[in-house]
Amino acid sequence: MRDVIVFSGSAHEPLARQICDHLGVPLSGVDMARFSNDCLQAQLLVNCRQRDVFIVQPLVPPTQEHLMELLMMIDAARGASAAHVTAVIPHYAYARSDKKDASRISLGGRLVADMLVTAGADRVITMALHAPQVHGFFSCPVDHLTAIGALADHFRGRELDDHVVVSPDLGNAKTATLFARLLGLPVAAGNKQRLADDRVVIDSIVGDVAGKRAIVLDDEIATGGSMIELLDKLDEAGCPGASVVCTHGLFAGAAVERLNGHSLITEVVSTDTVPAPEGLEKHAVVSVADLFAEAIARIHAGESVSSLFDGVDPRHAPPQLKLPSL
Amino acid sequence: MRDVIVFSGSAHEPLARQICDHLGVPLSGVDMARFSNDCLQAQLLVNCRQRDVFIVQPLVPPTQEHLMELLMMIDAARGASAAHVTAVIPHYAYARSDKKDASRISLGGRLVADMLVTAGADRVITMALHAPQVHGFFSCPVDHLTAIGALADHFRGRELDDHVVVSPDLGNAKTATLFARLLGLPVAAGNKQRLADDRVVIDSIVGDVAGKRAIVLDDEIATGGSMIELLDKLDEAGCPGASVVCTHGLFAGAAVERLNGHSLITEVVSTDTVPAPEGLEKHAVVSVADLFAEAIARIHAGESVSSLFDGVDPRHAPPQLKLPSL
Amino acid sequence: MRDVIVFSGSAHEPLARQICDHLGVPLSGVDMARFSNDCLQAQLLVNCRQRDVFIVQPLVPPTQEHLMELLMMIDAARGASAAHVTAVIPHYAYARSDKKDASRISLGGRLVADMLVTAGADRVITMALHAPQVHGFFSCPVDHLTAIGALADHFRGRELDDHVVVSPDLGNAKTATLFARLLGLPVAAGNKQRLADDRVVIDSIVGDVAGKRAIVLDDEIATGGSMIELLDKLDEAGCPGASVVCTHGLFAGAAVERLNGHSLITEVVSTDTVPAPEGLEKHAVVSVADLFAEAIARIHAGESVSSLFDGVDPRHAPPQLKLPSL
Amino acid sequence: MRDVIVFSGSAHEPLARQICDHLGVPLSGVDMARFSNDCLQAQLLVNCRQRDVFIVQPLVPPTQEHLMELLMMIDAARGASAAHVTAVIPHYAYARSDKKDASRISLGGRLVADMLVTAGADRVITMALHAPQVHGFFSCPVDHLTAIGALADHFRGRELDDHVVVSPDLGNAKTATLFARLLGLPVAAGNKQRLADDRVVIDSIVGDVAGKRAIVLDDEIATGGSMIELLDKLDEAGCPGASVVCTHGLFAGAAVERLNGHSLITEVVSTDTVPAPEGLEKHAVVSVADLFAEAIARIHAGESVSSLFDGVDPRHAPPQLKLPSL
Amino acid sequence: MRDVIVFSGSAHEPLARQICDHLGVPLSGVDMARFSNDCLQAQLLVNCRQRDVFIVQPLVPPTQEHLMELLMMIDAARGASAAHVTAVIPHYAYARSDKKDASRISLGGRLVADMLVTAGADRVITMALHAPQVHGFFSCPVDHLTAIGALADHFRGRELDDHVVVSPDLGNAKTATLFARLLGLPVAAGNKQRLADDRVVIDSIVGDVAGKRAIVLDDEIATGGSMIELLDKLDEAGCPGASVVCTHGLFAGAAVERLNGHSLITEVVSTDTVPAPEGLEKHAVVSVADLFAEAIARIHAGESVSSLFDGVDPRHAPPQLKLPSL
Amino acid sequence: MRDVIVFSGSAHEPLARQICDHLGVPLSGVDMARFSNDCLQAQLLVNCRQRDVFIVQPLVPPTQEHLMELLMMIDAARGASAAHVTAVIPHYAYARSDKKDASRISLGGRLVADMLVTAGADRVITMALHAPQVHGFFSCPVDHLTAIGALADHFRGRELDDHVVVSPDLGNAKTATLFARLLGLPVAAGNKQRLADDRVVIDSIVGDVAGKRAIVLDDEIATGGSMIELLDKLDEAGCPGASVVCTHGLFAGAAVERLNGHSLITEVVSTDTVPAPEGLEKHAVVSVADLFAEAIARIHAGESVSSLFDGVDPRHAPPQLKLPSL
Repeated sequence: MRDVIVFSGSAHEPLARQICDHLGVPLSGVDMARFSNDCLQAQLLVNCRQRDVFIVQPLVPPTQEHLMELLMMIDAARGASAAHVTAVIPHYAYARSDKKDASRISLGGRLVADMLVTAGADRVITMALHAPQVHGFFSCPVDHLTAIGALADHFRGRELDDHVVVSPDLGNAKTATLFARLLGLPVAAGNKQRLADDRVVIDSIVGDVAGKRAIVLDDEIATGGSMIELLDKLDEAGCPGASVVCTHGLFAGAAVERLNGHSLITEVVSTDTVPAPEGLEKHAVVSVADLFAEAIARIHAGESVSSLFDGVDPRHAPPQLKLPSL
Repeated sequence: MRDVIVFSGSAHEPLARQICDHLGVPLSGVDMARFSNDCLQAQLLVNCRQRDVFIVQPLVPPTQEHLMELLMMIDAARGASAAHVTAVIPHYAYARSDKKDASRISLGGRLVADMLVTAGADRVITMALHAPQVHGFFSCPVDHLTAIGALADHFRGRELDDHVVVSPDLGNAKTATLFARLLGLPVAAGNKQRLADDRVVIDSIVGDVAGKRAIVLDDEIATGGSMIELLDKLDEAGCPGASVVCTHGLFAGAAVERLNGHSLITEVVSTDTVPAPEGLEKHAVVSVADLFAEAIARIHAGESVSSLFDGVDPRHAPPQLKLPSL
Repeated sequence: MRDVIVFSGSAHEPLARQICDHLGVPLSGVDMARFSNDCLQAQLLVNCRQRDVFIVQPLVPPTQEHLMELLMMIDAARGASAAHVTAVIPHYAYARSDKKDASRISLGGRLVADMLVTAGADRVITMALHAPQVHGFFSCPVDHLTAIGALADHFRGRELDDHVVVSPDLGNAKTATLFARLLGLPVAAGNKQRLADDRVVIDSIVGDVAGKRAIVLDDEIATGGSMIELLDKLDEAGCPGASVVCTHGLFAGAAVERLNGHSLITEVVSTDTVPAPEGLEKHAVVSVADLFAEAIARIHAGESVSSLFDGVDPRHAPPQLKLPSL
Repeated sequence: MRDVIVFSGSAHEPLARQICDHLGVPLSGVDMARFSNDCLQAQLLVNCRQRDVFIVQPLVPPTQEHLMELLMMIDAARGASAAHVTAVIPHYAYARSDKKDASRISLGGRLVADMLVTAGADRVITMALHAPQVHGFFSCPVDHLTAIGALADHFRGRELDDHVVVSPDLGNAKTATLFARLLGLPVAAGNKQRLADDRVVIDSIVGDVAGKRAIVLDDEIATGGSMIELLDKLDEAGCPGASVVCTHGLFAGAAVERLNGHSLITEVVSTDTVPAPEGLEKHAVVSVADLFAEAIARIHAGESVSSLFDGVDPRHAPPQLKLPSL
Repeated sequence: MRDVIVFSGSAHEPLARQICDHLGVPLSGVDMARFSNDCLQAQLLVNCRQRDVFIVQPLVPPTQEHLMELLMMIDAARGASAAHVTAVIPHYAYARSDKKDASRISLGGRLVADMLVTAGADRVITMALHAPQVHGFFSCPVDHLTAIGALADHFRGRELDDHVVVSPDLGNAKTATLFARLLGLPVAAGNKQRLADDRVVIDSIVGDVAGKRAIVLDDEIATGGSMIELLDKLDEAGCPGASVVCTHGLFAGAAVERLNGHSLITEVVSTDTVPAPEGLEKHAVVSVADLFAEAIARIHAGESVSSLFDGVDPRHAPPQLKLPSL
Repeated sequence: MRDVIVFSGSAHEPLARQICDHLGVPLSGVDMARFSNDCLQAQLLVNCRQRDVFIVQPLVPPTQEHLMELLMMIDAARGASAAHVTAVIPHYAYARSDKKDASRISLGGRLVADMLVTAGADRVITMALHAPQVHGFFSCPVDHLTAIGALADHFRGRELDDHVVVSPDLGNAKTATLFARLLGLPVAAGNKQRLADDRVVIDSIVGDVAGKRAIVLDDEIATGGSMIELLDKLDEAGCPGASVVCTHGLFAGAAVERLNGHSLITEVVSTDTVPAPEGLEKHAVVSVADLFAEAIARIHAGESVSSLFDGVDPRHAPPQLKLPSL
């Protein structure tokens, strides 16, 4: 196997360029054609033969277009005799379709995983899957990265004495707990109350937040509805200000407007797994391009990717088996 | 195996309704949800267990959206224990991506065929594939229908003495020849001249068209560019008027404007494999809903589909082996 | 497809017999041989040709033995030309291996799912998977049943005025909420606190339990450690007594001793997805044999299985799409 | 991956030897046994472990014997732990079975492609497939070479002022046009007329051939029937002489006799993708062994194969996407 | 699933006709075309849709031709939407390629099994595989029939007092022992001596044959070399006469001449799994057409096939598990 | 591909350590966890990325546990992006389930082979399969080693003038013949008599053993029942003493007691493919760790494995095709 070749679809070319800068390789060109009947066709403009090919494409809106672009680039790379084809999907949006919570529904998370393998993907690199079980939907190896170390670094060096990390969901607070530990902070959480089968509200805050500045951590912010609800509760609970932090900052629909209008927010922090929104105030972007670049370099060199996250996330720590408490 | 169940995606629900009317079954409901991150999810609203499920969806723009809808409905039907899942794709747009005519390009016709099987399609029914070889891209059985009988019926009973069938492409005139034979008419053809590797013009008409009314037959009209060029040549050659006929009338881009503006056209005839365009003048739609319904009924009943086209197209005729002349 | 044939491995033959009684069919024999080198061999003693074969085997200890028995019975049924082979796995123990929470670990939930399909399983029926995402590990259709209706029926008709449903895990309280709604009761939950990455304790009870009798609901009780911890907290919180309820009552290791020794417990209720433990006091077993029998009957007859749970669990309710709140 | 190892079946060992000579590697031995029940067995006489194995075998008569030899050599190489197994099939005869032009026929082009992959082929190298769509029948990468550059070189340096390139089929003249461009010559074509569904004759020549010497180019000559028909038309049209040129010169049945007997022919040129016929007069063989050797060397070295044909055929040119005109 | 449809390749049409006569169905037609490049194409002349299709073709010389015919008929049936495609292969000649007894050889028995499944076979019916392990080469169900009951019937009613059943190979005498038991006769066997690694001779007869008439039973006679050697030994041992009996009577090469010339032979008995040889004297053919017909009828009706051989062969007896003695 | 990494399950870690010593690499650690519900989980403690991973695990009792351990280690290695995963299975116990000798039985030898490939095995190394046909059950390459050279070395240098090699089964004496040739000794064999369909006894010894010391060679000794029977016959035949030799010395059940109690035995020799039994007297273990180490080294280096057995076993000899005598 020879050189690393990196291609990008149209979903987030700036991220691909940054990854390439970190790797010290050029971003190779793709000619993505659209026929008059709206069909797509990908042409890779650089020789792939026996190369270690990485194709960068987060699944952001228009999601179907970007997914098909990705599948076609994978197909073209396989057909061009690439040694390995790795789909680099910083945001795997279909991870949210991860269970059959109603009769006769499609299971998009698994279906899209199967389509990627059918098209020719040998491996997937992704970050912060919505549920860790989605890893098991793929029949090829997956390198599952985490941004919490990079996000914690954003806050390091600041005066954090009066801060508290807040998880929007008490029942899903594992990542927030890790994040708090990295910063030496206490943790609190929103307590979701199920009003009806399909309606959930946050009705209280578990943990002490009065007089403390909150750092609210979520994996993804889409419309921002839950976040606003949580911020209102934090406000009620006497929290004087909040940093809103997430890995995948989609900020879809009215999210920008909602967040801009909320008085508690002092900062919104997200990574560049997806393109940054326009008009979002007090917005800081933490780049994870170096993490993806380092993962690609290690994969290519046959080095451990998990050790990249030593001390950050026990899923990636040196092997120490943890038995689930049954 | 029990009842026939028919679902439709959003690409062309009126066609699905007409097919159901012919079959005497209701069109079963689908709830197609779009999440705030633009991911799709299909829910089939009728029990599919051990049913013979048919899902109607031509691949018309927005093509990627409609393709993903189709894949998700197939996935949902399979997961719901359907006995057989048949993708009814009246227009398989990706058939045009049928060859590697440049280095390192994707082969969409094959890729999409593989994706349909991966999602769970057991069989495909389609019509007028751009090239007959595309049949071989599918690893599941394909029932490949033809509209030329239905299109010929449109002209039957008219006074056709001074008419001639014209194929836009002399080298691909097999279907036009069949069509002409059905109507007892002579045939002529445009003679395409290759100016450069990627540029083709029609430089002459082979066959006698002077003073005759043309019935120009093509499989698909997208932007209409080639058709206009042919009509100009027919005009020059003394043809007093032309019916423009095709199976798949996409009429994309400037097609409607172009065709409306051409003086030679007396009629535009297409089928309802795809939704009819708006504003196209002198446009007659020949429905093939009955053909699809009959094919579905025969498939369900275990009867021959090819015999549906006896006397129309030798590909569907009673078995008479034809050896290619090598 | 012809008759229903039911086989059972050695894991839980009484359940298989009860399922057969409900179905009105005999339990067909299997000769399970063990060679002197400890290899297993299954022989099915009844003709399977074109039959609808169901093989009942929960994955209880010795788990590897029972899994191999199941795989061999599936292989034998496929080789004997069964029309369909359905693995009926009332307790899919490997569902707990559902994520890569450490580097380089096996993913047993997916691996065993793939092995079942490799051996020849066409469909799986199971109950109360540890995480709903595990459904997506299977590449064949899965009918995922729920016992909460049956468990709720156990309490119906009793005087429940002073009762409260308690979930051991606040963050995973969806099923308890459904259960509470079925009985018209309020809900409370243990609040798990993460002490270290691999150590979780219940440090408080969210919701009002003082003076109320608790009905604690979990999906599975193995060693009972977490349950005892929760009961201690309930005791501290002024709860005068508790019913302990679960779907899969494994009661492994010291569980029986622990539960027998806890003064708060007034009743332990579990289903018969797994064999009942010996020596467990105040133990009531709610049979789900009728649910499995009804599911098998409906699958065979091509009727909806999800409608079996109308009003019980919205995952099985008549189709009403619920969008996740992003 | 280590050395290149080349094996040959019995179809065309001289070509394999020439390819090896160009590569500077020995032709490795194969012991092909035939049992008394006519079954074949291949034994590869050289270590294949982790080698880059190429097996040369065009599908020439007896076609079934040669195909089975090829499949068995592939199977043996895979079983012997070859790193990659590439089937080098200079003439893929089953490409002519590329469409379902009658009911219930086999689709040999796809079936044989699937069989090659089943046997263990990782890649295919072939030349001048009858239809470019056949590329899509393979689920492994295909390197599709062209001989038109080599055939054009045969004529370079000659005095060609009064020559014209003639395509037997006006509708399939793309390759002839490329060939003419390489030699700076005009192009003409036979105009095929469909007499009946299964009967085609050439009824005229499009383009100016009077007084010019023809260079007739076809992809394959089998029985030579169409070629003779075309030559007769060229004769009528005033053409004083003709070179007959093709990639695959099978010259089956009465072909040699027919061509030897035609007065217009001044030369017959074909490549060595298939063994040369006996007794064909004025026959020149253009070797493509160097092209196959160079392709093998580039594949092994991870270099671009398409650039081998720069300026020859746009399918192999540096990437310049060509959109089909819809 | 509807009617039984039976097709035959060209290997042994009379057998297929007899099977059809027993079944009371017509033999459906196949048009097997051979193109001028020696490629084959099969067209099935009867509607296969949802039919239970059986294709009869033993693998007799020319073996490769007959195998490809079979694969093409299977491919055509699958493509024509047959409900099930069963390959009826009365003699599976490639069963002799069942082990890797030299380095880097092909394993034809497994390769051809995989090819049949790739082409679309859902099930295989065969008879008297050379080694019973070959059953495990197939990934689809196999119904493995035996002719020893039919062959024993040939001798029933005769005066057999002075007869002995002789197996050519002492180490492989299981079938001969069964056969002897059916006729109430003693058994003897040739004792093969390994002279060198690749050279085996029969050097003695184990058991008492002096003065007894031998019934020599083998699964297959190809060139007859081993049989002649055994007969010579029997002659030396004082055996006055011998019936030569086998399932697959190929009689290839010099077999007819050799057998006709041996004075000990009083009768040669074989079945019609393969076409009868010409010129073989004292030859009786025992038809197994009825066994194949009955197996087809039972498969179609979902009845047990093994019970067809009750009392004949314990492999097909009512289930009585037999543990191998380790 | 980079370094060799060797892991061991719990079946026979000492063998794995010895293999590593011969290879000069450390044995890499595995953490095999068992959950309270008896499910297993493997964690590999060393980076596998792009490594050439070998996992050593013979299938000895408890066989199901060891098989699942092996499958989970394979799954973990594949998921951790190993370049190649080789299952090193010195004793493949399921090889004894190699045929359908009764109706509707599982075929464990094939099923387990398919499971290994499903889990992610790219290649298998094993030794002395019970039947050579089992090789064909694997769809991945198999390196099939032999211990007879190593076992013969055990006897070399001794005074062997009055010795004879004895095969327990006359009909399966090929290996014993090879073994005898290596030592320059004559060969004899037990003559198995089939008393009933499922009952076999040794009723005589073929060959001269009177006054000679026997070296009895078998592939595997499980309960030792057949061996004791043979030794009794040798005793009767005047054999004064016997060495009992086998590759796989399981010595299950009463084997140790039986062998210890037999007066004829002067030595029991087996290899370390499986752990040595306790209490077996006069037991010598011949290590094959060096053979496995050398095979691993050659596989990794791309060198021939078969040449490792030059002069030992013709299956591994330099290629000399041996046609079966039909």
